[in-house]
This record gives sequence, C-alpha cells and structure tokens, in this order.
Amino acid sequence: MKVLVLGGDGFCGWPTAIHLSANGHDVRIVDNLSRRKIDVELECESLTPICPMGERLRAWKEVSGHDVTFDNINVARNYRQFLDLLVDWRPDTVIHFAEQRAAPYSMKSSYHKRYTVDNNLNATNNVLAAIVESGLDIHVVHLGTMGVYGYGTAGMKIPEGYLKVKIETDDGELLDNEILYPANPGSIYHMTKTQDQLLFFYYNKNDGIRITDLHQGIVWGTQTEETKRDERLINRFDYDGDYGTVLNRFLMQAAIKYPMTIHGTGGQTRAFIHIQDTVRCIALAVANAPNSGDRVQILNQMTETHRVRDLAEMISAMTDTSYEFIDNPRNEADENELHVANDQFLRLGLEPITLSNGLMEEVTEIANRYAHRCDTSKIPCISRWQS
Amino acid sequence: MKVLVLGGDGFCGWPTAIHLSANGHDVRIVDNLSRRKIDVELECESLTPICPMGERLRAWKEVSGHDVTFDNINVARNYRQFLDLLVDWRPDTVIHFAEQRAAPYSMKSSYHKRYTVDNNLNATNNVLAAIVESGLDIHVVHLGTMGVYGYGTAGMKIPEGYLKVKIETDDGELLDNEILYPANPGSIYHMTKTQDQLLFFYYNKNDGIRITDLHQGIVWGTQTEETKRDERLINRFDYDGDYGTVLNRFLMQAAIKYPMTIHGTGGQTRAFIHIQDTVRCIALAVANAPNSGDRVQILNQMTETHRVRDLAEMISAMTDTSYEFIDNPRNEADENELHVANDQFLRLGLEPITLSNGLMEEVTEIANRYAHRCDTSKIPCISRWQS
Repeated sequence: MKVLVLGGDGFCGWPTAIHLSANGHDVRIVDNLSRRKIDVELECESLTPICPMGERLRAWKEVSGHDVTFDNINVARNYRQFLDLLVDWRPDTVIHFAEQRAAPYSMKSSYHKRYTVDNNLNATNNVLAAIVESGLDIHVVHLGTMGVYGYGTAGMKIPEGYLKVKIETDDGELLDNEILYPANPGSIYHMTKTQDQLLFFYYNKNDGIRITDLHQGIVWGTQTEETKRDERLINRFDYDGDYGTVLNRFLMQAAIKYPMTIHGTGGQTRAFIHIQDTVRCIALAVANAPNSGDRVQILNQMTETHRVRDLAEMISAMTDTSYEFIDNPRNEADENELHVANDQFLRLGLEPITLSNGLMEEVTEIANRYAHRCDTSKIPCISRWQS
Repeated sequence: MKVLVLGGDGFCGWPTAIHLSANGHDVRIVDNLSRRKIDVELECESLTPICPMGERLRAWKEVSGHDVTFDNINVARNYRQFLDLLVDWRPDTVIHFAEQRAAPYSMKSSYHKRYTVDNNLNATNNVLAAIVESGLDIHVVHLGTMGVYGYGTAGMKIPEGYLKVKIETDDGELLDNEILYPANPGSIYHMTKTQDQLLFFYYNKNDGIRITDLHQGIVWGTQTEETKRDERLINRFDYDGDYGTVLNRFLMQAAIKYPMTIHGTGGQTRAFIHIQDTVRCIALAVANAPNSGDRVQILNQMTETHRVRDLAEMISAMTDTSYEFIDNPRNEADENELHVANDQFLRLGLEPITLSNGLMEEVTEIANRYAHRCDTSKIPCISRWQS
C-alpha cells in the first residue's frame, strides 16, 4: 500500500514511517521540520542524538533495503504543492501527524496559541480539501488525543469517540441518540484536536472521505523495533517542560537524580501507551480502513491508565530517586478517575506493552545512557495556563 | 459604553454599529472591507447603492451628531495592530462579525473553503487571545448561526445552545447532564461556526472571558430605523447566488418578474429574523452581559420559522410572480420540521417584526426601487456542495 506520512519526522511520525516501511508498505514522508525548528526556538534538544532526515533515510535503506522518500512541505501553508504531490503519487492512505502537539507549548504565550490554532486547523483542512480536489479515494488516519474527552465523567468508562445519550422530546418521551462525545479540551492544543473532529465529521458527511481518528493517550518510551536497528535511526526523547511527556520527564529526572517534579497533588489519572504500541496501532488502523459510507471511525489508542503520583512512586522505587510536589501550572482538576474503552484495538490483535515490562529498559538504555546530554535548566515547565 | 464592532462594514455589522451609536454608545468600527472586495471578485454588487465607509460615517455624523470611527484592520492577520487598539481604546464590549458569512461562497472551490476556515478561525482566536493578553475584562458578543444545530431532531424544540441529556453509567444509572448542543454543520461556513463554539467554550473556561454567542436565523430585509435616515446610510442588499439569502433573493426575483427559483422541493424549514430585529437583539445582548464566572451565554436570535416553498407562495401571491423548482445545489434534507426556542430574547423585551408586516415594504422600497441595478446573470447559485 502507498502510505504518505505527514509529520513523518516527529516523535510518533518517524517510528511510524519506518514501521510501515518494514511491514512492506511504500512510504513517503512529508514534513516541514517544524519540530526541529522549535528545538532551536526553545534552545532544547532531544536527549537522544537524532540524525538529519537525509541520514535517517540512508541508514534505513542500509539496514532494511527499503526506500523511504521525503518532501519538505508545509501542509498548512503550501496547499498547491501538497495537492500536486497527492495527484502525482496517488497514495492509498494519508497519515496526518502534521500538527503542533504539545499542550504546554500551545500555552506559552499569545504567539504560541495563535501558531497552534493556525497551523493545526489549516493543516487538517488543507489535507481534507486537497483529497476532495484530487478526486482520489484516500483513507485518512489522524492522530488525535484522549484529551478531547476531558477527564470529567464519573462512573462511566470513556467510550470510543461516540456517546449514547437519551434526549427528552417535547412530549416527554426519551429518544436514544448517539453523538460525538462532548468535547472538553484542557489546553489550546487539545482544543484544536476537538476542532479537527468537526472537520472530519463534516468532510466525511459531505464528501464521503474515509477517516480514522485515533484518540491517543500519553506516549512513553523511545524506541521501536525499527528505530533500534541502527543508532542513526534513534527516535526523539523529549524531557523539557514543553515537549517532555510526564513519564519520560520522570525517567530523565531519575537518571540524573534530579527530584521528580509532580504537578499539583499528582492525583491526575491519565491514559498511557508505549511508542512501540503506537506504531502497531497505526499499522492496524492502516490495514483496517472504514468502508465507503461509514462514519468517522474513532479508536482509543491507549493501553493502561495510571495516577501520576503512582508513576513517580514506581520510578522512585526502581531508581532510588525522590520526588516533590510543585504548583500545577495547568488549569485542571487535582484528582480524577479515568476508565477508558479500548476494545477495538484489542479486537484487532494489539498485545500491549505494559509499564511493568518496559520501564527498566527506558531507564537503562535511554535515560542513563544519554544523561550526559541533559540540560537541567530545561526541565521545569514554565508555561502557565493562566497569567 | 465603548463598543468595538468588528466587521462593522457588513450587512449586519453596519446597521448594528449605527444602531448602537444612536442608542448612545461610543462606537468604533474595525473592518478590512473584505465583503466589498468579494463583490469585486464575484463581479457582483449590492442591489442598493452602498457608500464608501468614509461617506457613511460623515452622513451619520450629519444626521445624528454622533462620531463613529473606523480602523481598517484584518483581525485574522494583523494581531498586533488589533491588540494595540484594544489596549489603547479599552472597549467594554467587542462585537465580532469579522467572518466570511456565506455558505455557498464557502463551498465554491477549495480556495474558498480554505479562505473561510483560515479567516474565520484565526479571526475568532485572535480576538480571544488579544483579550487575554490585554488583561481587560471585555464582553464578547459573537454572531453565530442556527446552522450549528443542523436540522435533524424530530419532536424536539431546539434549545438555546445547551442540550439536556441523560447518560447511562456503567452501573446502568441514568445521569442528567447538560452539554453543548451536538454540532451538525451543513457547509464549511457553518462548520467554522461550530469550531468557534469550541474556542468560546475554552477561553471562557480557562480565562473567564465573558461571551455571548448569538445563533442567528436567516436575515431578511434591508433597512433599519437608522439606515433609513439618509440614502448614504443605506444597507447592503445581496441577491446573488452566493451572498443573497433565500428571502431577499425571492423578493428580487419577484421585482423583476424572474421566476423564483426554489432549491429542491422547497420543503426545508428555516428560521428567520428581520435585520431590524438583528440590531435590536444585539443591543439587548450588549446590555445584558453574562456575569464573571458564567458559562458562555447562548441565545437563539430568530423570530419565526417558515418552509421555503411557503415563502415563495406568499411572495407569489403578493407580486404575481411564478416560481420553479430546480436541483438543490446543497447537500441537505429535502424536508424538515423546525421548532426553535427563543425565550431569552422575548424575555429581554424583543417585539418581533413578522414577515406579514414587513414584506411589502421590502418589495416596494428596495426590490422594486433598485431593480434597474440588478444583474440577472448573478441570480443562479452555481456553488455546488459536491462535485
């Protein structure tokens, strides 16, 4: 299958691209290298030493024998160039990772809010408008977030995208209805993903585009089977206050014996998934496209839920590092329960990697090994949700 | 009160600006004149001869004694200029009309889809981000559309913005909940208004911005008490296939004895409001801001519902013009029922103008009077929802 990976240089995009290539797909990457440019802006670097795209692709060719090609296109800005690529190359599937993906970055300042809204919504709309204009029947796989749900509904497992409700008619009858799960975003970044859902809903309804939207939990881990095959293929590992996700930040802090910093009470329960399972889920989504006429297919891409302070506890026990509680920069509930349905991926054959069997490898193979590259001044989260 | 009217040169914006000025508010208009530039693009003109902004404002000063000022700013593009204006002038209320407002225009081509998404979402986000950055406690009044609701729920009056639902917990208990009415947009334009709702929801929740979102029906009529005071103040009247709304198009067709063109069966039921009531509603919204801490206040700004073919029938009887049914360019249901709650504006004192008491004036004072300015080649709607 021909698969175009938008945002194929990023933390999820890169391992996905070479995983699909390893699985026999013909893969082409589109990226504007914005994530690397944001590193320049933030004066940060991936803890792991990532290679330039050209070197990554040469290394992948060496170890796998497969060609993956790369086009430097800004999908949110250069619509015509993107459309030409679609029409020339005629992909079967477009995987859309081409969005700014960090909540704290989206909250840093007015500029960062505006960049995130402008980039993410124009990118998604351009992808969909170009597919309509191309006339091609392309399956879109989009990386969304569990954050579209918010974390508010007590006593109820979060379903996969759609919620069954009863609505009272004017005659007092209760009608059954199924609606898009009511959005409750916790940051500007998360908001753009809820707005993406409306773009998908509309283009699916009006133009019949086949779409799979993956509501992903917080990713942890660094390497996949493919990125481990050569050091030049290594994936990003972000530990800074903007792009580092909670678990990877804890691991990095533990590796350098910097007390782990827990935002608020650490009572937030969140959904997690290992990067290896991310790429497997996306491969499953590519192989299981909705049929023509189906509504948007929404799957929850997560494997387990944990309370943040329990994670700190677990890593503390494993590495003998202390932790401390600091003011939460985010505007969110201190404590929440979270139960999430993920039946669809389990039914498609996903066998999850659990924290208990993957954590030690992260500590020794990544956090400890590259600890000398850490700039500790970048660890604190300085973005605040409210001024 | 100091009121900044974004999009104050448009069909709703202009009469609103001078209505608020007549009511004693200190009014300042921001507009990038995009609506006039779209006339240039479409090779169309308002049926009524509208004056340039400078002349409008001089005429208003002459007849009313009030100064209204004007800044030519593109709110979606020139964030810094807009922020400076907020900080310097310190408005109490910002009325946000600065969006591309025609569904058929938004569907003309990929360019028009992309322009509408890019312009509307960046404009709304810039307004909200600038208010947060300014630190001012400004009430935002936004013109939304009834179209966010879709036209689908049989047996139920459409509530004002929020829907009471019952959700079943994992234990089989039914929980009462109130959610944003599930969005079901019928065009790219309508979709941007549903995405605006998420921007409002988020900035209200995170930053406490006080927001009133007005879900307006289809506007008919041309003049208000203020625009009638001098011909130089006359409001736009659009009759073309993109910007002309259904009733004004019928009136124009009747005036020149061009058979009225009904899309599909004409069984679509829609909500309507006269432009005079639009400006009254907005004045009521300005005077009745939500309190600090309130959720987004949503009001349905419409006064009556009609089936499209009944409107044609009514005008046909009044003017002795025939009508014909043509293929519907839109992707929508042929027939629907529609009942809409508008209790909040009625409670605030709105006394609606009904079709029966306003139609004849439109026919004689506008459509007949300016019929010689009509370009009949512009009447057909050539935008199609699906290629």
